[in-house]
Amino acid sequence: MAQRPSPVRGMRDVLPDAAERRQWLEATIHHEFARFGYRPIETPALEDLRFLESGQGGDNEKLIFKTLRRGLSLEQISDVASLADAGLRFDLTVPLARFYATNAPNLPSPFRAVQIGPVWRAERPQRGRYRQFTQCDIDILGEASLLAEIELLSAGSRALAAVGLEEFTIRLNHRRLLSSLLGACGFPDNAHGHALIVVDKLDKIDVKGVERELADAGHPHTAITQLSQVLARSESAGTPDQLAEVLPAGVDEESLEELRTIASAVALPEAAPKARLVMDLSLVRGMGYYTGPIFEVAAPGLGSSIAGGGRYDEMIGRIGGQPTPACGFSIGFERLAEVLAPASGQREHRVALLWRSDQDLARVAEHADRLRDRGDVVETVHVGGKGKGVYKRLAASGFDLVVQALDESEPRPLST
Amino acid sequence: MAQRPSPVRGMRDVLPDAAERRQWLEATIHHEFARFGYRPIETPALEDLRFLESGQGGDNEKLIFKTLRRGLSLEQISDVASLADAGLRFDLTVPLARFYATNAPNLPSPFRAVQIGPVWRAERPQRGRYRQFTQCDIDILGEASLLAEIELLSAGSRALAAVGLEEFTIRLNHRRLLSSLLGACGFPDNAHGHALIVVDKLDKIDVKGVERELADAGHPHTAITQLSQVLARSESAGTPDQLAEVLPAGVDEESLEELRTIASAVALPEAAPKARLVMDLSLVRGMGYYTGPIFEVAAPGLGSSIAGGGRYDEMIGRIGGQPTPACGFSIGFERLAEVLAPASGQREHRVALLWRSDQDLARVAEHADRLRDRGDVVETVHVGGKGKGVYKRLAASGFDLVVQALDESEPRPLST
Repeated sequence: MAQRPSPVRGMRDVLPDAAERRQWLEATIHHEFARFGYRPIETPALEDLRFLESGQGGDNEKLIFKTLRRGLSLEQISDVASLADAGLRFDLTVPLARFYATNAPNLPSPFRAVQIGPVWRAERPQRGRYRQFTQCDIDILGEASLLAEIELLSAGSRALAAVGLEEFTIRLNHRRLLSSLLGACGFPDNAHGHALIVVDKLDKIDVKGVERELADAGHPHTAITQLSQVLARSESAGTPDQLAEVLPAGVDEESLEELRTIASAVALPEAAPKARLVMDLSLVRGMGYYTGPIFEVAAPGLGSSIAGGGRYDEMIGRIGGQPTPACGFSIGFERLAEVLAPASGQREHRVALLWRSDQDLARVAEHADRLRDRGDVVETVHVGGKGKGVYKRLAASGFDLVVQALDESEPRPLST
Repeated sequence: MAQRPSPVRGMRDVLPDAAERRQWLEATIHHEFARFGYRPIETPALEDLRFLESGQGGDNEKLIFKTLRRGLSLEQISDVASLADAGLRFDLTVPLARFYATNAPNLPSPFRAVQIGPVWRAERPQRGRYRQFTQCDIDILGEASLLAEIELLSAGSRALAAVGLEEFTIRLNHRRLLSSLLGACGFPDNAHGHALIVVDKLDKIDVKGVERELADAGHPHTAITQLSQVLARSESAGTPDQLAEVLPAGVDEESLEELRTIASAVALPEAAPKARLVMDLSLVRGMGYYTGPIFEVAAPGLGSSIAGGGRYDEMIGRIGGQPTPACGFSIGFERLAEVLAPASGQREHRVALLWRSDQDLARVAEHADRLRDRGDVVETVHVGGKGKGVYKRLAASGFDLVVQALDESEPRPLST
């Protein structure tokens, strides 16, 4: 084998330092969500293509790694679509909807689920983007009231605080409010989908850019003008009441009232102490499946979306289950794993037990086992020749105590 | 969508009770291995087929889920092999060897790794066997001495004890001893592979069955007779010294000496207190890659192999890395997850906070948050109508305390 072995293109190995950080992150998040009654579930990496390609996944449906049907012979291949019937999941939401449709009779209602696991997307490989990455979702299924949104924002905020995020901003919007705004401005119903895609780009291309792109697509001039005026004026509207003042007549009052309820809940001191909540009329969130309030979390230095979610009441019914209200919150696990590290607190000792080839291996191993029984991490380290520079190497490897194998004295600090 | 949604054929969903057991099992095992200096790593689910089909995986290489190349058009398909270039890993050992070949310059030597993760095999679906299942491996790479075997058996035994296994038996054998035995009995070198496959069946088909199957395959009559006599007499040989007495002249003395060293180490009181070690000359372990001592763990009521492993010094070199001695121990995670449960010790309270639709949702959520800050698990539970039978349902769901939302009195026990 001439080529040097490497991971599959676009994927990566996780070395021990990073793997330990990821374990800590996962355990801390799980612990926090458990306190709200969220319980873990697991779904298979593979799902039937009829679910993955059901139209719930937006552009991600184009990025599916499909698995080859087994036992194919060349003669049987009549078209490319017949080659595969399953694929690797591209997110955790479609599998959750399928899981709930399958298992609802055996689950409580409402059902609170937490999932942390890998997903796969065949995106063009680029710096910092991988074709396998971990998502971290909590969802409440079967809760129609705003308690779902309020609780998810509280649980999500507490999880972010627990892993060390000092402050962050929750941006809040509402899909039905957006839709009624487009109607009030004069966009016909069938133009809403495209208009939302353009509004979603506001933070990148500015109000002028949105205007231009909408005009290029042939939307009505008066509608574009009115929408861009509202968007511009909404930028300084941080509260639902301020937002109400800049909205035209005819927008959905119920949506506004829902935003007021969520905002008042998040403002309470116990709910999300590290979070500041602001309205953001340009927040769309790409996925087509959202039906109600939507939110995104931004943190200084970590970009505009370290977490996000919203209500998606129609997905479970569309995927073949009983229609069920649903709301979710997703944490950007990979981004957090890059930037956060466990607080360095009191840890157990790491003891290097030095052994030589002329020693009785059974006794060496037993010596290490006895030290482990006292609670320390004990690693056997072979010393060959004169063992020159071994102490320096041990300190660099993170050991803090050292002892000679079969020497019954106490392990001593490496620094002396 | 007419069909009721279900997981992909041969795969399964994990519901909360089982998922929590699996999390506990994983955390406990990780904690125990960490005390020996084993550190977690992660490898991608997909690997290049040139590694997965390099001949190191035995029959598992026939069970690979392959992923379809992207952007294929029907005209480009000239043969079935060209349809895929990567596949889902069928074990954690081949990916570990590839990982080490890729990353050795950035890893300590010896390198102690622990991996717990899913693998995929397209086996014929059958009761209790799934096409996605979790493996749990520790390995020492770069340690040529028997300290590797001794430490793995100690670490593995302690992990099994930590998750609650009360007693178990370690069966021990040696691939070079087996090979030299076949030679001493008169099997030509090129017949060893097949003969080992037959010997591996001894516990299922008995010595007579082994004799018959070897004869049917045309192996020399005198060799079969001598081998079956040795196998029969070895059944009561529990120690290496007893085993030495039933072996013919000419077997590899060095292998026997290695077995003595391992047996004496495991017998020490601190090494593996719950384990009993016996020689088992019929232990082969299917994988072709083993090169030295091999072992398997049996536990009463859990079948003959709840864990196993051995030395495989040639795999990393064969897969394209620097030749590196290697030894591993694998725990049967799925079997343990089925039968074990966390010891029911002191746990936090589970509080049901009962809310009604006419209450202020923000205040309800805040009440729950305040109770959580005291350390309990608090779940909001909606009560509609007269709430008849709600206490019974709460107790059945595992709650032990209950409180009415916005009622500032202490949560009270559900049983009263």
